[in-house]
Amino acid sequence: MNEPSMLELLKTRRSVREFKTDPVDEQDIQDILEAAMNAPSAVNEQSWQFVVLSGTMLKEFCAINTNTPKGAAVGILVCQDLKAEKAKGYAVQDCSAATQNILLAVHAKGLGGVWTTVFSQNADRIRALLAIPEGIQPFSFVPIGYPARKPANMKNGFDKKKIHKNTW
Amino acid sequence: MNEPSMLELLKTRRSVREFKTDPVDEQDIQDILEAAMNAPSAVNEQSWQFVVLSGTMLKEFCAINTNTPKGAAVGILVCQDLKAEKAKGYAVQDCSAATQNILLAVHAKGLGGVWTTVFSQNADRIRALLAIPEGIQPFSFVPIGYPARKPANMKNGFDKKKIHKNTW
Repeated sequence: MNEPSMLELLKTRRSVREFKTDPVDEQDIQDILEAAMNAPSAVNEQSWQFVVLSGTMLKEFCAINTNTPKGAAVGILVCQDLKAEKAKGYAVQDCSAATQNILLAVHAKGLGGVWTTVFSQNADRIRALLAIPEGIQPFSFVPIGYPARKPANMKNGFDKKKIHKNTW
Repeated sequence: MNEPSMLELLKTRRSVREFKTDPVDEQDIQDILEAAMNAPSAVNEQSWQFVVLSGTMLKEFCAINTNTPKGAAVGILVCQDLKAEKAKGYAVQDCSAATQNILLAVHAKGLGGVWTTVFSQNADRIRALLAIPEGIQPFSFVPIGYPARKPANMKNGFDKKKIHKNTW
């Protein structure tokens, strides 16, 4: 069976919040991180760092950042590297592009995940839990696992009303 | 010839700043926008709007936003829809994910583009040029065309030092 085309995969990626208990291969996580680190970044500053969480650490993380669904085999915390950021606001864009590449690589592998926010009120406890140094800011977290079921909402997001030609 | 896999495309996308004069098919632009609008967004708010620029308008845009390379056949201005944004900072993340999907769809089609920032000091003139209404904030611009040459820097961005396992 041919892998679906990238254009198809870009359209069919959906948030996955419920997972099977099957483990995720370590090579898959490495491939996903390779995709993340080939995202574009402002002035090529690459202001991202990644913490891969599993087992007890993943459970403890989810107990703090309660908007992250539980039950994934593994997860990737994307952090802004503020020491690498060349102008205020760039790291958020770099880390957003990296997070989107993670979600797409996850989907291409038949895995599922969802972009969850790390709320600022949780950041200090997360930094303490994971011994994250000064200047590194937790940004997003993607739990990753085999989807428990096909996402219910496959509605295409395309909306012609949001396209304007040369003038509004 | 098989299309390269998504994982391959995620790794090989590079910024393209020089373009052939060949036109870009309108259906390609529609497919690229469909990919953009299937990006994830915070609480599914989809706080994005798009202005497709070509011809004179594209030239005038590039004369204002001088960090955008000239010579592309067409381009997409991604705007934050602040009326749709549910919490401050979400629209930047939504529009970053949409911009990244644009770049990947562009690459999948054998086209080239680059994520250029719309600097805030240019925003008012751009809003005036394109008659962009209140509450809509120009965010990024991707010029799109057939690449004049293969990007010089194909260095893989993977960096093992940026990966941490369960603790820093």
